[in-house]
Amino acid sequence: MLVLFTDFGLSGPYTGQITAVLKQLAPEVPIISLFADAPSSQPKPAAYLLAAYGAWFPDGTVLLCVVDPGVGSARRAVIVEAGGRIYVGPDNGLFDIIMRRDPDAQLWEIGWRPQPLSASFHGRDLFAPVAARLAAGEPIANVARRTVDESATRGWPDDLAQIVYIDHYGNAMTGMRGALLSPEARLIARGHELTSAATFSAVPQGQAFWYVNSNGLAEIAVNGARADTALGLAIGSPVSVED
Amino acid sequence: MLVLFTDFGLSGPYTGQITAVLKQLAPEVPIISLFADAPSSQPKPAAYLLAAYGAWFPDGTVLLCVVDPGVGSARRAVIVEAGGRIYVGPDNGLFDIIMRRDPDAQLWEIGWRPQPLSASFHGRDLFAPVAARLAAGEPIANVARRTVDESATRGWPDDLAQIVYIDHYGNAMTGMRGALLSPEARLIARGHELTSAATFSAVPQGQAFWYVNSNGLAEIAVNGARADTALGLAIGSPVSVED
Amino acid sequence: MLVLFTDFGLSGPYTGQITAVLKQLAPEVPIISLFADAPSSQPKPAAYLLAAYGAWFPDGTVLLCVVDPGVGSARRAVIVEAGGRIYVGPDNGLFDIIMRRDPDAQLWEIGWRPQPLSASFHGRDLFAPVAARLAAGEPIANVARRTVDESATRGWPDDLAQIVYIDHYGNAMTGMRGALLSPEARLIARGHELTSAATFSAVPQGQAFWYVNSNGLAEIAVNGARADTALGLAIGSPVSVED
Repeated sequence: MLVLFTDFGLSGPYTGQITAVLKQLAPEVPIISLFADAPSSQPKPAAYLLAAYGAWFPDGTVLLCVVDPGVGSARRAVIVEAGGRIYVGPDNGLFDIIMRRDPDAQLWEIGWRPQPLSASFHGRDLFAPVAARLAAGEPIANVARRTVDESATRGWPDDLAQIVYIDHYGNAMTGMRGALLSPEARLIARGHELTSAATFSAVPQGQAFWYVNSNGLAEIAVNGARADTALGLAIGSPVSVED
Repeated sequence: MLVLFTDFGLSGPYTGQITAVLKQLAPEVPIISLFADAPSSQPKPAAYLLAAYGAWFPDGTVLLCVVDPGVGSARRAVIVEAGGRIYVGPDNGLFDIIMRRDPDAQLWEIGWRPQPLSASFHGRDLFAPVAARLAAGEPIANVARRTVDESATRGWPDDLAQIVYIDHYGNAMTGMRGALLSPEARLIARGHELTSAATFSAVPQGQAFWYVNSNGLAEIAVNGARADTALGLAIGSPVSVED
Repeated sequence: MLVLFTDFGLSGPYTGQITAVLKQLAPEVPIISLFADAPSSQPKPAAYLLAAYGAWFPDGTVLLCVVDPGVGSARRAVIVEAGGRIYVGPDNGLFDIIMRRDPDAQLWEIGWRPQPLSASFHGRDLFAPVAARLAAGEPIANVARRTVDESATRGWPDDLAQIVYIDHYGNAMTGMRGALLSPEARLIARGHELTSAATFSAVPQGQAFWYVNSNGLAEIAVNGARADTALGLAIGSPVSVED
């Protein structure tokens, strides 16, 4: 399976062109768009989101991950093997959390370059062909060489006490794994103090709460309303925990 | 064919995860996203929209339908056979209008449960596997048993005199079948009195009108502009008919 | 490959129904959504966008192109052969620029009509079946006859000095081919005077610039921000060039 995790949007040309490249080079492999609205140009919140959602896919999945504000600069193009899956994308922190959670993770630098390579769309020209070739069975060593992990220099925490994604319903996902929080914990966001519930229908209409979402992240929601507008939350909003 | 009718959005993770489940369990069946922006958490308008659009698909189509504000509560999970098609989703009224329009419709309660079953994403964990298995040819009796239809208790009308969907152009679909209205009828919405026309190019630029849309619903539009903003319409806005 | 270029949106019913038609009539052909948010009901800017992006696809691609405010009127339904690709859609100027850029382009008028043909959704009822049949290998002459090009009567320029598309990041594409502009040229848009850069990371955060995008159009962007909101740009905004 080829899985897309990008900030490209689905309607415009970017996801379509990438899909065309993948279909030409790996015609038999199903393509799934997981996120086309990952945090735009923000690798840090995207890294926590990707770690939570990428891990849901079966062994052997190739994930093409592009949140790449530094496209055209000297940032490396990399492949990460972790948890039985293969991730392809820019070396800007997007894979830091995935690597940290698998002690056997391996990092490769992509040496292969297409002709021509546009300055602004490596997703289509560089990352998609690499992902398609790996999904079609080519060995990583054909396009990349092992390299040194420099993620420690970024110093990002194990869990991010911020909002990392607002979903279609206005629910606000944090970068914190719910399993590490006590069910008694209160989350504080924009001055609102929230207790946990198992699911929406366990609280009255209009009430805000937090819960462990279906991919393991602590998420803030309001029953019957949008949490983002009700509580004033956006990607990057800080969240604190009181036990 | 597997058809998705949901309020999940396409860009975020929900449609992608559902598609991944379907592709794993029914790899040969084409997947079509019909609506990913069905009326959010509102089974009533969604029911009239689904009745109009589901009926367009050929015999044997399996429709995975998730507008499910009660996820995690005690609402039943059901399968409806109607009009030669199979519908899978929550028992919250979403299938009431489909059943009412086919005297031979049959209702089944899904007894099968996956392990694990998240509290908040039955679309992925319960409904998608069931839909995929049925699309791959498994008999309904493997996962469900016949049950009693309780839709009469909701008392919903045959046609809904409200706006049930705003499309990408700002056109406002009602929950009323156009074939039941006289072409001479006037629709009144937010104080605007509208006569019918065959299509957009039959009225002057800027003029509001109603017409029977390509799936049989009476729809309110403005030639060259968005009807929702021009007339102040939203899902739930009442519409009355004057003959 | 079947490529969709429309203003239908992806979430609502239109792209889904078209995809269902294509899958039934050409089940083996991959379907790519290139644009579902082409300039809404505006064939002129859409024509320049389509010329830039359609040309990227390999020989033999069939492009189903629907930006069709005149649906239901007397405008012709046409097929264009140009640059080794086949375009299917309304004769409202959408294909003018493609034809002008290929001296061997051929224009066909679609004579075939489905039963029934809705008044408002020729994309589904007329253009999609034609595109699917051509993608499945049927000759054009089965559904259409050669006809006379009337595009000269519209008098559109070779390049359009306007914004023709705002992308997911807020970047503003012009209808001008970047290769025809000097790298020293300044673009003037809404009073802002912009110089060119190779890519985003070549200019400071917050600075506006223009560059040749990955499909050859001159595009206006701001490093780290949305150009549309920062500069007040929308589809149709005029752009002038000073050498």
